Amino acid sequence: MKFCSECAHPVVLKIPPDDTRLRFVCDHCHTIHYQNPKLVVGSIPVWKNDGEVKILLCRRAIEPRYGFWTLPAGFMENGESTSQAALRETQEESGANIELHELVSMINVIHVDQVHLFYRATLLDLNYAAGTESLEVALFTEAQIPWDQLAFQTTVQTLRYYFEQSGKAETDGSFKPYCNDIVRPRHTA
Amino acid sequence: MKFCSECAHPVVLKIPPDDTRLRFVCDHCHTIHYQNPKLVVGSIPVWKNDGEVKILLCRRAIEPRYGFWTLPAGFMENGESTSQAALRETQEESGANIELHELVSMINVIHVDQVHLFYRATLLDLNYAAGTESLEVALFTEAQIPWDQLAFQTTVQTLRYYFEQSGKAETDGSFKPYCNDIVRPRHTA
Repeated sequence: MKFCSECAHPVVLKIPPDDTRLRFVCDHCHTIHYQNPKLVVGSIPVWKNDGEVKILLCRRAIEPRYGFWTLPAGFMENGESTSQAALRETQEESGANIELHELVSMINVIHVDQVHLFYRATLLDLNYAAGTESLEVALFTEAQIPWDQLAFQTTVQTLRYYFEQSGKAETDGSFKPYCNDIVRPRHTA
Repeated sequence: MKFCSECAHPVVLKIPPDDTRLRFVCDHCHTIHYQNPKLVVGSIPVWKNDGEVKILLCRRAIEPRYGFWTLPAGFMENGESTSQAALRETQEESGANIELHELVSMINVIHVDQVHLFYRATLLDLNYAAGTESLEVALFTEAQIPWDQLAFQTTVQTLRYYFEQSGKAETDGSFKPYCNDIVRPRHTA
């Protein structure tokens, strides 16, 4: 951020009165430009057939992590709920028709100022197809998942937790969301 | 938003290529200025003594809802986790020393583009004191809580759920987070 989005004057980085953090501040119109973490929301689309459990993954057609596999997910938008975001992103990236269930994971990705949420979902049919942000979409059993070609640690942790806990939500109701923080050095531009 | 924060040219509201939503776009430097929901994170500080359960609430010294009571909470900052945000906001608003436990609620407040998270917390001592954003802080039993003077629906719903579920987290571990959406007409400026 270089200029005030309200009056176009250059902003300065300083700690405003009654604050403790550096903010971009406009000394002309006195707007304080707060910057806050973003939510990335997605689903775990589960296909069950003859006792076999498969998960729908997308291979990324965009950076970061072009060509790697991921659960369908993306930035939550203004004007929607977290579950609406999970449904929309799943539809956009995989074309999948899903029914959404409970929250499976909430993972802080601190070095990129993101919080990732994943919901369990039932894949309702096999009419999925890669969206513009995916090279391909495909179903994988736990053993088939390309663990070393997954795009993000939040995908890895969410899938591992889902399989560890598998069935608990449907049977004894003891399923609880996985909460974790991923801490890495911050990238500097 | 009126001007590009990167080059100071006026922005226009339009749907960028490969997008489906209106964004503030700079036709000069081609920056797309995305706007996304913010996380508001707080705690339910619980004081237990002789079998009596009390909750620490803060009376707001700031707008919106000046003078109304709330659980300590505030906007999550870049560079911190959701639990660090809950600890920090609790300390800032109530001076309370707490130990944080599991997530109790995740509530979408769609008309203001916010997601509210509350964690259960143990109040470790009685050395609390109103911060600059609070008029006073005080402990309340369930019966004493000023239900008609609570600042926000997310506080009401979180407290009601906490008392309904009270003890489940500590005893049989069956406590699960409350997830809900609050839908109201959007305020127009």
